Formats: sequence, C-alpha cells, structure tokens
Amino acid sequence: MKLIADISIIPLGVGLSLSSYVAVCEEVFTEAGLEPNLHANGTNVEGEWDTVMAALKMCHERLHDMGVPRIATNVRLGTRVDREPSMDAKLESVREKMKK
Amino acid sequence: MKLIADISIIPLGVGLSLSSYVAVCEEVFTEAGLEPNLHANGTNVEGEWDTVMAALKMCHERLHDMGVPRIATNVRLGTRVDREPSMDAKLESVREKMKK
Amino acid sequence: MKLIADISIIPLGVGLSLSSYVAVCEEVFTEAGLEPNLHANGTNVEGEWDTVMAALKMCHERLHDMGVPRIATNVRLGTRVDREPSMDAKLESVREKMKK
Amino acid sequence: MKLIADISIIPLGVGLSLSSYVAVCEEVFTEAGLEPNLHANGTNVEGEWDTVMAALKMCHERLHDMGVPRIATNVRLGTRVDREPSMDAKLESVREKMKK
Repeated sequence: MKLIADISIIPLGVGLSLSSYVAVCEEVFTEAGLEPNLHANGTNVEGEWDTVMAALKMCHERLHDMGVPRIATNVRLGTRVDREPSMDAKLESVREKMKK
Repeated sequence: MKLIADISIIPLGVGLSLSSYVAVCEEVFTEAGLEPNLHANGTNVEGEWDTVMAALKMCHERLHDMGVPRIATNVRLGTRVDREPSMDAKLESVREKMKK
Repeated sequence: MKLIADISIIPLGVGLSLSSYVAVCEEVFTEAGLEPNLHANGTNVEGEWDTVMAALKMCHERLHDMGVPRIATNVRLGTRVDREPSMDAKLESVREKMKK
Repeated sequence: MKLIADISIIPLGVGLSLSSYVAVCEEVFTEAGLEPNLHANGTNVEGEWDTVMAALKMCHERLHDMGVPRIATNVRLGTRVDREPSMDAKLESVREKMKK
C-alpha cells in the first residue's frame, strides 16, 4: 500500500529554535529513499506505507537520542486504491485547474 | 517507545455518512488492545509505537477492502522520554489546573 | 455557518508542562459559550464559525500575554450544509454502528 | 498578530477528484493577498490573523456555494511574539542546517 504523507514534527523542551531537529528528520527521510519535499510547515514524502512509517519512527528515535524529551508530530496520511497515488499528479491537477 | 495518538480518518468517495467506517476502525483498535477513546473528531489511543501503527495500517487496509477508494487521515503523535507518557495523566493535569 | 472544531494547542519555549496553558484556553472557550469537550489530545468545540474563531484567536493572544513566545496549533474544522452539524450526532452515529 | 498557516481542505460528498475545489481556494487566498504556496498536501499562507482566517472562511463558503455538502479541513497555525514570523526564514533556517 503506497502512502503520501505530510509530516510536521515539533520538538518540545528544547527552546524555540527547531530547525536543526527538522533538518535531522529530513536526513532520515532522505536516507530512507523518500526524497522529502520540505515546505514551510512540514515535509511531504511518498513511498510504501512501511518505509514511510519506519522513517518516521526513526526520526522520533533520533531526536530523542539527541536529547529532545518530548515530540508532538502532526501527520496527514493519504492512501488510495483506485489508482496509483502520486504527489506530482496531485499538484499538477490543481495547477491545471488554476490556469482556467 | 510508547506513543499517544489521536487519529481522525476520513474515507473519500463513499458519500457523506462516514460513521460505519469510523466504527470499523474502532473495532480494529480494540482488537489490537488499544482501548480507543472515541471523541467527536477522532479517537485517542496509546500503546507501543509499533502496535499503534500496525493497527492504523490495518484500519486503512480494512476500509480499502470494504471498497473505500481513498482515505485521508490526520494523526497527532506524541512521544516522550522524560517520563512515561499517559493520556489519563495529561487529562488529569489540565483538569487540576482548571479547578484553581 | 456552523463549525465543529478540534483544537490542539502546543505552546513552545515554556518547557514541557503545558497543562496550565491548555487550561487557560479551556476557560477562554467556556467564556465564549462553546462548552469545550477536552480529550487527551485536544478539545472539541462547536458553534458559529466567527464565535469559534474569535475564541481561538483570544486563546493565542492570552497565551502570548502570559509570556508564551511561540504557539503551534493544529485544528480540524468541519462544516456542512446538508444538515445541521452536531458533535453529539457524530458520536451517537458511530456508537450505533459499533453495537451491531 | 501575524499568522503562518498550512491549510489542507478536503471536500466530502463530491467524489474523488478534489483538485478543482483546491484550485478555488488557492484563488480565494490569492485574492486575499496571501500569496499561497501550494504543496502536495496543503497550502501555506502567511499574513495577519484576521486576513488569513477571513480567507479560510470564504473558501469554505465558496465551496459550499458550489454544492460541496461537507468540508473537513486540517490547519496548522503558528504565531510567535519573540520575533517576526516568516515562512521564508523557517525554510532557510532548516536548509542551512542541512548543509552542514
């Protein structure tokens, strides 16, 4: 089952500068072969359900290993079986509608 | 790693009545031993990361097997390593503050 | 337009104990006449769109006034025009399906 | 109070092709002067709290006017008072950390 996910990770108890932790998770996703698309409020990844979820777990584990005591993550998950899901296709489809 | 999760599952392409699908997921979570706490906009579960995530995957799979072509799920995930996370403790802590 | 909302507020830069801030927001929602239903990962409110959104803004403002430098909030919003939306009806509908 | 928001709008009861509705909301945000940044699972906007929230309400209203019976929206909201919030600065900060 393929999964499209939008992941927003908020480390708690480490002050206000969160970017170094977000960068670690980007690396984790990249190492997992997920080609993350970072945006201002999260990152988009697509892949097999188990691959994405294993990377997300590793991200939490790595941040805790770095000393982050608490993490609050928001994830939007999309699966579909009518056709192959694709982030590029989603974006392209909206952009086409906007041209009209 | 223990996980507290708040899961909101939205089946797409099956009309406006979503409660029967939400009920199926409640059953999946219960079968997984997660004692889900249903609320008006999602359900709260707590357990080992792998247990919660396996149940969430099974929920998506079961809904697709029932003919749901597309699913959009929003999940709030909480992990912490400073002390044992607990949904009851979270609620109790807020309620104590509200009494003052 | 009536709105059902599930609001999860995360104050940043104030350490790990967030319950006193959540309690303040519960008070703000109650003062706004919204009868919030607190759960382990957020709070559910229903009311007119403008009433709910004004209360949410006041919650952010009040926390910032208390010294919270940064706030990350996740909100699930539901509106519908086919019939009157109701949190009680949503819950009741799922529970009926679960009995079968 | 300035607001950074990530908005994911899911129209219900209109089948599986949602892109035309997402495109309408992009137009609403653009008309409001918000310069939306569309991504695969939502759109990022920044502006004054009231401006962003008025545009979000108009988006729900316009979709309902188009015949969408029910809408489920997920929003991530960020406010901060320690310094001017900026989506560009957030992205830049993560990218700098990733270079190291």
